[in-house]
Amino acid sequence: MNKYVELNENTVVEYVKSKISFFDEDAVYVCNEIGDGNLNLVFRVKDTKNEKSIIVKQALPYVRAAGENWPLDIRRGEIETHILNIEYELTGGLVPKVYFYDTDMYCMAMEDLDNYIIMRYGLLEFNQYPNFAEQISDFLVKTLLLTSDVVMEHKEKKENVKSFINPQLCEITEDLVYTEPFHIGARNNIEEALQGFHKEEIVDDEELAIEVAKLKYDFMNNAQALLHGDLHTGSIFVNQDSTKVIDPEFAFYGPMAYDVGALIANLIMNYISTKASLDKGELRSKHEKFLLDSIRDVVDMFKAKFLNLWDDAVTDKMAKSKGFKEYYINDVLVNAAGVAGCEMVRRTVGFAHVKDLDGITDNEKRIKAKKENLHLAKILIKNRTEIVNGEEYIRLIEKYL
Amino acid sequence: MNKYVELNENTVVEYVKSKISFFDEDAVYVCNEIGDGNLNLVFRVKDTKNEKSIIVKQALPYVRAAGENWPLDIRRGEIETHILNIEYELTGGLVPKVYFYDTDMYCMAMEDLDNYIIMRYGLLEFNQYPNFAEQISDFLVKTLLLTSDVVMEHKEKKENVKSFINPQLCEITEDLVYTEPFHIGARNNIEEALQGFHKEEIVDDEELAIEVAKLKYDFMNNAQALLHGDLHTGSIFVNQDSTKVIDPEFAFYGPMAYDVGALIANLIMNYISTKASLDKGELRSKHEKFLLDSIRDVVDMFKAKFLNLWDDAVTDKMAKSKGFKEYYINDVLVNAAGVAGCEMVRRTVGFAHVKDLDGITDNEKRIKAKKENLHLAKILIKNRTEIVNGEEYIRLIEKYL
Repeated sequence: MNKYVELNENTVVEYVKSKISFFDEDAVYVCNEIGDGNLNLVFRVKDTKNEKSIIVKQALPYVRAAGENWPLDIRRGEIETHILNIEYELTGGLVPKVYFYDTDMYCMAMEDLDNYIIMRYGLLEFNQYPNFAEQISDFLVKTLLLTSDVVMEHKEKKENVKSFINPQLCEITEDLVYTEPFHIGARNNIEEALQGFHKEEIVDDEELAIEVAKLKYDFMNNAQALLHGDLHTGSIFVNQDSTKVIDPEFAFYGPMAYDVGALIANLIMNYISTKASLDKGELRSKHEKFLLDSIRDVVDMFKAKFLNLWDDAVTDKMAKSKGFKEYYINDVLVNAAGVAGCEMVRRTVGFAHVKDLDGITDNEKRIKAKKENLHLAKILIKNRTEIVNGEEYIRLIEKYL
Repeated sequence: MNKYVELNENTVVEYVKSKISFFDEDAVYVCNEIGDGNLNLVFRVKDTKNEKSIIVKQALPYVRAAGENWPLDIRRGEIETHILNIEYELTGGLVPKVYFYDTDMYCMAMEDLDNYIIMRYGLLEFNQYPNFAEQISDFLVKTLLLTSDVVMEHKEKKENVKSFINPQLCEITEDLVYTEPFHIGARNNIEEALQGFHKEEIVDDEELAIEVAKLKYDFMNNAQALLHGDLHTGSIFVNQDSTKVIDPEFAFYGPMAYDVGALIANLIMNYISTKASLDKGELRSKHEKFLLDSIRDVVDMFKAKFLNLWDDAVTDKMAKSKGFKEYYINDVLVNAAGVAGCEMVRRTVGFAHVKDLDGITDNEKRIKAKKENLHLAKILIKNRTEIVNGEEYIRLIEKYL
């Protein structure tokens, strides 16, 4: 820790210049701290003359918002760098490029995505991203299939499983996604008008509990592929041309369905939000159509590309058995529908909500939307064996929303 | 490696005395090398005066049978000691007690099981072990359920998964159990009269290949519990009173079904052996009855004890959902039937055979027995969803053998 010094807006330029030759000689620097203040120090260092910029992210040994009494592993940037490098390589650049990681300063520098917007906020402004489904399905197929032992040398894959074991962050998901939202209490955050409905529809449904338990044990035990681990629309930067996935700090070896399902759920919740927030009209129908198309395309493109890449990339002899790839992708899609349901429940009644739902300002419409969301979530979990293509999602959305 | 010296019959007594005070002052030592010569140096050090003895097992840095050109991780005894200690604790002594492990000499000392016999040889002499089913079902339930995250604190379990990852030995199982026996060639060992049958019944069956692939990926990805990993009747010492499981060098976190299925398969193969080797008569029917009873009891006692222990031991809130334990044990039993089938195939046509089958001296009877074994194995793999209790095994054995 001797060489560790907290950076600030005055010192970060010299620091960056000492680590990489990224900026030009004649650079005119502007430097801002842009972090959200929760965990890390985040700076944008910009050369206004040559229009170049870089993001510098330094970890603190504690939760910034809480102070030194809540210590946190300061090496988390090392793991993030490792994963981003792997994902960059596998996907041909669908994550920000990392320029360096400094083990003394627990500091990383990466590509500035200043012409991008966080997808959740973009969608809440009813923007459309025509390349999104194509690019995110690429991201999913390449990061998931190519890190599994269907493709990888088995011993190397096991070494990966070992090095990416992530007990602390997995526990957060186990608790906040798969346990607490299906019970009363704990860290749940349920608005009063929804509490009765939550109890009757979710907590008291014994069949639902068994299905969620199955999904939870799949999450905990099935070391299938290197997941992003938190792939909601808040972890994705987009613009009209391009998609970049960020923040893989929850990465670990788990079931492919977890990433796929989390993403679908967040698109569905934006659909619910759009329907509740806008009056009928062109804007609403255009955005609804974009979302339904995106949901269908994400699912169907993921499936089609997965099966194609399988033929090129699979190395394991038993995995090549005729018909096995169809079984395999079907299993991923079935569980993805279940994960989507769990994500939708927890974002409605659990600890961490989404703006898509909470941001519906009309009280009545918001409660109605949240009830519909919980109801559809249940259908996704309990009927998941039938939900293996994009059309089925559209059918259910049109039936229940 | 400075402090490492290979032991021999002349030096092992002084070595043991320097490490533990196990023997009496007036001991009269007899010392023999009793290893099978493949991997380790194994000595029995006995005090003939006071009837006390101990087993000393020293690893060599290479495969003893092959010489220094085939190096092997010399720390394997450390892993074995670690697992035996865990299993001893969990099962109340159903494995040999380890007295010490010496990290300088890569040497362990453990309880001498000189009044026990390796179960495979005992069964081949038509001996019966009345306590076996009771004790081995105890071993299975306690080592499997209590190391899973249904019971363990989840973060601690993940640390266990990490520390017991065993890529080299898992690869042996993946290849020799789940891949090569279902193809032509590689390291298979198939007697000529069986080659056509093997090709038609096993290799050419595309449905079988998919089912085996599913089981293989369950073995590779499902980090459910700390397995023994090689629980055949050659890894079990028995006598009329007691059962001790040995040789957990393949231990890793995998599907519970793997241990359960391997054991059942080896009992079935002894049944086939008995039927083929003995003429009809009292000895044969007595031994057949013992084996059928044992198979039924192992399955049914495992299930009943598992469900009982679940109620006492389970800590995870979602796992306590009503009906989930029945789903969970059903899944274990279904896959155990599949594993049993794979084990029966590989012991007939794969690299490592069993004496139960190869030891049937009459050519015609042996080939017939091996064909029946392959046929029943297929049934177990393909119909495994129906095979969830002891009675169903008995029904299939009586129908197909």
